[in-house]
Amino acid sequence: MRMEATTSPPSAAAAPQTRARDEGSPGEGAPLRFETEPGRYRHWKLSFEGAIARVAMDVDEEAPMRPGYQLKLNSYDLAVDIELADIVQRLRFEHPEVKAVVVTSAQPRIFCAGANIYMLGSSTHAFKVNFCKFTNETRLALEEACAESGQRYLAALNGVASGGGYELALACEEIFLCDDGSSAVSFPETPLLAVLPGTGGLTRLVDKRKVRRDIADVFSTLAEGVRGKRAQAWGLVDSAIPKSRFDQAVAQRAAELAASTPDREGPGVKLAPLEARREEKGDVSTSAYRHVSLRVDSAARTAEIRVLGPDGSGPSDAAGMRRAGADLWALRAFRELDDALLDLRFNHPAVGLVLLRTSGSPDAVRAADEALWANRDDWFVKEVLLHMRRVLKRLDLTARSVFALIEPGSCFAGSLFELALAADRSYMLDGGEDGAEPAAIALSALNFGPLVMSNGLTRLASRFLAAPERALALKEKTGLLSAEEALEEGLCTFTPDAMDWDDEVRLAIEERVSLSPDALTGMEASLRFCGPETMETKIFSRLSAWQNWIFQRPNAVGPRGALTVYGRPERPEFDWRRT
Amino acid sequence: MRMEATTSPPSAAAAPQTRARDEGSPGEGAPLRFETEPGRYRHWKLSFEGAIARVAMDVDEEAPMRPGYQLKLNSYDLAVDIELADIVQRLRFEHPEVKAVVVTSAQPRIFCAGANIYMLGSSTHAFKVNFCKFTNETRLALEEACAESGQRYLAALNGVASGGGYELALACEEIFLCDDGSSAVSFPETPLLAVLPGTGGLTRLVDKRKVRRDIADVFSTLAEGVRGKRAQAWGLVDSAIPKSRFDQAVAQRAAELAASTPDREGPGVKLAPLEARREEKGDVSTSAYRHVSLRVDSAARTAEIRVLGPDGSGPSDAAGMRRAGADLWALRAFRELDDALLDLRFNHPAVGLVLLRTSGSPDAVRAADEALWANRDDWFVKEVLLHMRRVLKRLDLTARSVFALIEPGSCFAGSLFELALAADRSYMLDGGEDGAEPAAIALSALNFGPLVMSNGLTRLASRFLAAPERALALKEKTGLLSAEEALEEGLCTFTPDAMDWDDEVRLAIEERVSLSPDALTGMEASLRFCGPETMETKIFSRLSAWQNWIFQRPNAVGPRGALTVYGRPERPEFDWRRT
Repeated sequence: MRMEATTSPPSAAAAPQTRARDEGSPGEGAPLRFETEPGRYRHWKLSFEGAIARVAMDVDEEAPMRPGYQLKLNSYDLAVDIELADIVQRLRFEHPEVKAVVVTSAQPRIFCAGANIYMLGSSTHAFKVNFCKFTNETRLALEEACAESGQRYLAALNGVASGGGYELALACEEIFLCDDGSSAVSFPETPLLAVLPGTGGLTRLVDKRKVRRDIADVFSTLAEGVRGKRAQAWGLVDSAIPKSRFDQAVAQRAAELAASTPDREGPGVKLAPLEARREEKGDVSTSAYRHVSLRVDSAARTAEIRVLGPDGSGPSDAAGMRRAGADLWALRAFRELDDALLDLRFNHPAVGLVLLRTSGSPDAVRAADEALWANRDDWFVKEVLLHMRRVLKRLDLTARSVFALIEPGSCFAGSLFELALAADRSYMLDGGEDGAEPAAIALSALNFGPLVMSNGLTRLASRFLAAPERALALKEKTGLLSAEEALEEGLCTFTPDAMDWDDEVRLAIEERVSLSPDALTGMEASLRFCGPETMETKIFSRLSAWQNWIFQRPNAVGPRGALTVYGRPERPEFDWRRT
Repeated sequence: MRMEATTSPPSAAAAPQTRARDEGSPGEGAPLRFETEPGRYRHWKLSFEGAIARVAMDVDEEAPMRPGYQLKLNSYDLAVDIELADIVQRLRFEHPEVKAVVVTSAQPRIFCAGANIYMLGSSTHAFKVNFCKFTNETRLALEEACAESGQRYLAALNGVASGGGYELALACEEIFLCDDGSSAVSFPETPLLAVLPGTGGLTRLVDKRKVRRDIADVFSTLAEGVRGKRAQAWGLVDSAIPKSRFDQAVAQRAAELAASTPDREGPGVKLAPLEARREEKGDVSTSAYRHVSLRVDSAARTAEIRVLGPDGSGPSDAAGMRRAGADLWALRAFRELDDALLDLRFNHPAVGLVLLRTSGSPDAVRAADEALWANRDDWFVKEVLLHMRRVLKRLDLTARSVFALIEPGSCFAGSLFELALAADRSYMLDGGEDGAEPAAIALSALNFGPLVMSNGLTRLASRFLAAPERALALKEKTGLLSAEEALEEGLCTFTPDAMDWDDEVRLAIEERVSLSPDALTGMEASLRFCGPETMETKIFSRLSAWQNWIFQRPNAVGPRGALTVYGRPERPEFDWRRT
């Protein structure tokens, strides 16, 4: 039995809000929000049949995220991708019974035409870059679900998959293409738009699917794409199947994928809304969640993210954690942090520096961490850990400077110490203030494995690349560490005392926000990811960095650039000099 | 005894020519040339003492490569770096007795101030990018000399090393800093110029020296840099030594490095001038070398590089190869190819597509290759192989589309088949034309190891990333391969027959040169380097791609950008939006 889980929302009020501040003058238009839920989906149809979920793209062309373009041919904008990200996330938490996910289209002859060109053409540079980053993160989350959560994605291309459409397919574990004489895969970006298929496509072509580079070259310049058996022979899809047998073959393969994947014991854990309370007073806007607060000072161009640690009363066994569900501190706090990071990225583009603070008991954080670690074989606990990992990766990839401020009363311990390790630098107050308990940090099992960065290393291993034994030796440091000890162990950058703290931190902040935002982005992207590169880091560095460059170039975005004139009668004009 | 090998040249006529076409209108100014020799150096002093060479930077501030700036404080431009590249190359071939190289400054209180800011500020984007690429290649060649040629570079910082100056030091195996209260290392680019230290510096900081990322962050925003013991404690230099003991400590360490390195039996092999004959007729300019020709059609925006294979009479033993010296086909042909690639990069920026052709006997190429491989333990033969590897890497990194055209009479075999593997695609004519011998390709030992790409893999291994066993199985293919066999083995892209050849190749060329140069650059950079990333590829992808982006941004190069207003009274103005 196939059950439609969702229908179109009853009113436009439920649609994602329509304008990023980035798109116009600051303050103009409603800010973008990233929370959604199945009842509000406008662009995807989700259905379930036993262990198999069907995710069908059915973009409402009349519901763009902001006015000015139509989402024809299953093309997408950020709002469409926010729904997809929500689907991938909820399938993992709410539907543990699902073991195979068929991604397909509910529209005739088109699977997905990729990111909407008119949306891109009319967006600011910063929005384009952030849009691509978000869609990349969504596709990586989908791949992580295949690799880690036993939810195997199968792309069923029942129509044309071009550009970002084919990139979505590439993120799936397998790709089936309908061999009907018209369904095709293509990367028309370079020949038609003078940009790259920048959502990981080129990297996945040669690094994930390992398509031969000369074939990838031909394919990536062939606007009309490749159909049927040729697509299969070139390794672009796993199977090209005649129309008459397509649905059956997809169903059979999905059943096989599901059958070869271990069960996860239900029931699922419902992800409740985060219910942020938002306020704006003068230059300062705040978002207060249960465990997280975001405070943006637009005049100072700084933001403070404060995370409250757990209260120590949390469950220590898997059954208790499942009962706590979305209220489990580790899940709730990191979901809130994720939402705050996205808010910051899209709605506060001029903020240059994020100050990370925590409040609470280091021991309570460590207890929560140890409970997670002890129960990591439980599927739900594992999902909580994977989610923390994804959120921390999102922080690593946030193009803002990040300082951690470690003060008395803070709880930079274990999973929350990862915030300090993710920061570009950290300041730790040495000694107490007015007799208060001095600041302390602490490590937990979560610092030594489950929360790896996108380079495949833990943040400690990345930090001590020169001396891996130092990272390992820290396992022996099971107590609270004072500022002096933290400095000695290389775990913080500066340790001013109470006398110097205010001035030193203030000067560091003032200096940081005075520097060129672009140079800092390039510098931080170079310093944050030392050591090995993975497909994931290659997507964000090599591919995205080139795409960012191209997104600046007159050949793409100038008055006669290809992106600008797309859909108009005139042809693009290029400056032929090669760089 | 210390012997000054060079003095300033007697007349300005010997100085590198002064204007890249890129800098003004096409055709204006003399083209840049990359050949030089010690008698013509203007900016470096080279001296020898037994196994130790001393390379002292002494930039002539009145001899910029083009008018408009002075090379104060040992700052450099392309002409200075062309001399350095020549030094590194000639030390390897002409001075096998050298086992340690001390890089220092002949000017008081300054080691090197890095790339000249006014030169950068007044250069086109394309020139800046090509300049950085060349300087990166030079530093990587220096590192290769340390790793492979037993010439160990020691940076003796007897003054301030800022920006590119410190990056040059980072390329050396060890760095000694004079602890005199004023000598310092610094990366002032981000705080002062709103760009990156883009010659590998940030990558080498965290990936080669493995400096902790938060310390690297602090250092890279500290315009005044770091001196003495602090530089040593932060891992920025290996040793900070009081002035009174500095020269002695450097001499002693150089002697130790030399003593711990195996001897290479002399005499050296003198690198003779290449003596290209250049001609220009209408839209077509040609450079004819002995074994290589470059033909640029500026109307069609294509270039043809043709390499003539050896005549089969070359030496088969090391002694014979040393006697042949710079006339050895493999050395001469690849030096010519290198010069042609640099000519193309800097003097013909509008060329979008390079057609690679060869003429000669595949068997003669294989014989030359096998002779090199059989004698690879000889230092000179090893240098020849390493040089071929560097030139092929330069081809991989050339931001132009590359097609290999494999026709009857060609000799894409062994080392010359690497040209076809480096190409974005290859066309091989299937069958003969008018009874001529049909085109054939062939492999040699050089395809299976010594000529690895910057990703650390052979071009065959990169090509067959999906099936490494296919690359290995090709070792059994010891004969000539026809077009049909080459296609079957995955060694060429297309095999039109004589009937289709002209049209198919013409159409492919026309299509390629019609596409956006920027999108192609980004696409090729993504498709050419599959598989692992190394420090070397990270420098060219992550770091350089971000630098290219920053070099486009108004915050650096706009009318009030930091690079533009540097040295003027006004302060830069930034668009604060972070991307």
